[in-house]
Amino acid sequence: MAKEEATVPHPHRSTEETAVRRLIDELTAAVRTKNIDAMLTHCTPEIRTFDLVPPLQHVGVDAIRDVWRKTLAAFESPIEYEVHRLDVAVGDDIAFSRSLNRFGGMNRDGSHVVNWLCVTLGFGKVDGTWKILHQHVSVPIDMETGKALLGLRP
Amino acid sequence: MAKEEATVPHPHRSTEETAVRRLIDELTAAVRTKNIDAMLTHCTPEIRTFDLVPPLQHVGVDAIRDVWRKTLAAFESPIEYEVHRLDVAVGDDIAFSRSLNRFGGMNRDGSHVVNWLCVTLGFGKVDGTWKILHQHVSVPIDMETGKALLGLRP
Repeated sequence: MAKEEATVPHPHRSTEETAVRRLIDELTAAVRTKNIDAMLTHCTPEIRTFDLVPPLQHVGVDAIRDVWRKTLAAFESPIEYEVHRLDVAVGDDIAFSRSLNRFGGMNRDGSHVVNWLCVTLGFGKVDGTWKILHQHVSVPIDMETGKALLGLRP
Repeated sequence: MAKEEATVPHPHRSTEETAVRRLIDELTAAVRTKNIDAMLTHCTPEIRTFDLVPPLQHVGVDAIRDVWRKTLAAFESPIEYEVHRLDVAVGDDIAFSRSLNRFGGMNRDGSHVVNWLCVTLGFGKVDGTWKILHQHVSVPIDMETGKALLGLRP
């Protein structure tokens, strides 16, 4: 598990790890500008997602397009989106990453929101190109009150 | 991504995939009997976890031992724990899995609880043996009320 930020050059980083980190950088940039088409180019058609919003899983690229559209539509452009504490584990054709992502933005109602999200991505190499096969996005919950802890900071 | 249940034999399954599925089976069996030591044998010392409970991440085997101890202590033995909709993606030395896990049990207060959990595991091969490097456990939330949706069914 490499523990540097995605954008920090690293002399011992493999070509594959560099490619996976570049994908994460491009995905992050696409979220900032709400470019859902660009986000989707990094996903396989059969991508499966455990998201913040129900149901338990969202299956396929149309489902995740819908989730992203609704989520991003609630905020003014641009979105503040930053990947922190990134770890990546990269094999020959399977990889995964974990990070704490700061998602901030101006809500349509004028309030500024900052949420820290736990994000896991699963990748596979498809025809020589790394793609996202699986996403998992969540926040912890307070077991006493049953409330989502959207206000946690790392 | 193979989509069969962990326990179903499969003639085209690779040795590595079989090993990862066996690990998941053993972990599941250990949860059922609250055998935390057996659960921990499958983890690397530096395992990182995004759990249902705060903080945002739990770093290291001592932190996850503590989370598991507190979580399982709230329930009578044995725990009903089942892995459903399991997908695994296995490479040469990195793998990940995703599943919807049914966690049920008799609460210490006498109520029977069933929660469906979104579970992602990240694996790495350490000295020839697959180990868990990363865990992510969550439930979706209702964005209107801010409540965790512990009652969802797949």
